[in-house]
Amino acid sequence: MERTPPHPQLSEVTLQQVLEALVDPVRRSVVSQLAIADEDIACGAFDMPVSKSTATHHFKVLREAGLIRQYYVGTSRMNALRRTEVEEAFPGLLGAVTGAREEAG
Amino acid sequence: MERTPPHPQLSEVTLQQVLEALVDPVRRSVVSQLAIADEDIACGAFDMPVSKSTATHHFKVLREAGLIRQYYVGTSRMNALRRTEVEEAFPGLLGAVTGAREEAG
Repeated sequence: MERTPPHPQLSEVTLQQVLEALVDPVRRSVVSQLAIADEDIACGAFDMPVSKSTATHHFKVLREAGLIRQYYVGTSRMNALRRTEVEEAFPGLLGAVTGAREEAG
Repeated sequence: MERTPPHPQLSEVTLQQVLEALVDPVRRSVVSQLAIADEDIACGAFDMPVSKSTATHHFKVLREAGLIRQYYVGTSRMNALRRTEVEEAFPGLLGAVTGAREEAG
């Protein structure tokens, strides 16, 4: 059993896949929280208004889109924003999406 | 009968709405074609692999997301990219999405 889940190379990820990950407001919020915190965050420590299983799904989509890297520290699954790699592959996208004005409510 | 369809102010448009417009590859292609051409393009002159009615729907979504402005010249419906306004409201987004590497095929 491999505890560290698979991560794609950014060169394997399409813009389509990245946009499909980021179009979901909960997933975009996770990316924004990582961008703002500027440090890795445990799955349980995000502000996410969804069930645990739904959250797990969202993390998987983000991981498969190359946006986050997941790893374990003890029993905590940690999440790191793959900022540099994403910026190289899709220049400006992260900043545009995480820095943009979000709708109220 | 008003021939010019309604256009939102960019301040009324949410990032969510813009991303939902741009996540569709056909709509993203329309925006990219306008960005590359750097001139307005008639609805019938786009390279779009969809039916006319589907194309009309895509133009409506782009218009309602504030991404394009539509107007008539004679019987042709023309499309203009609202580049400056979109850039002001969502800095970097257009460039990231239209300039990004797109998947092959």
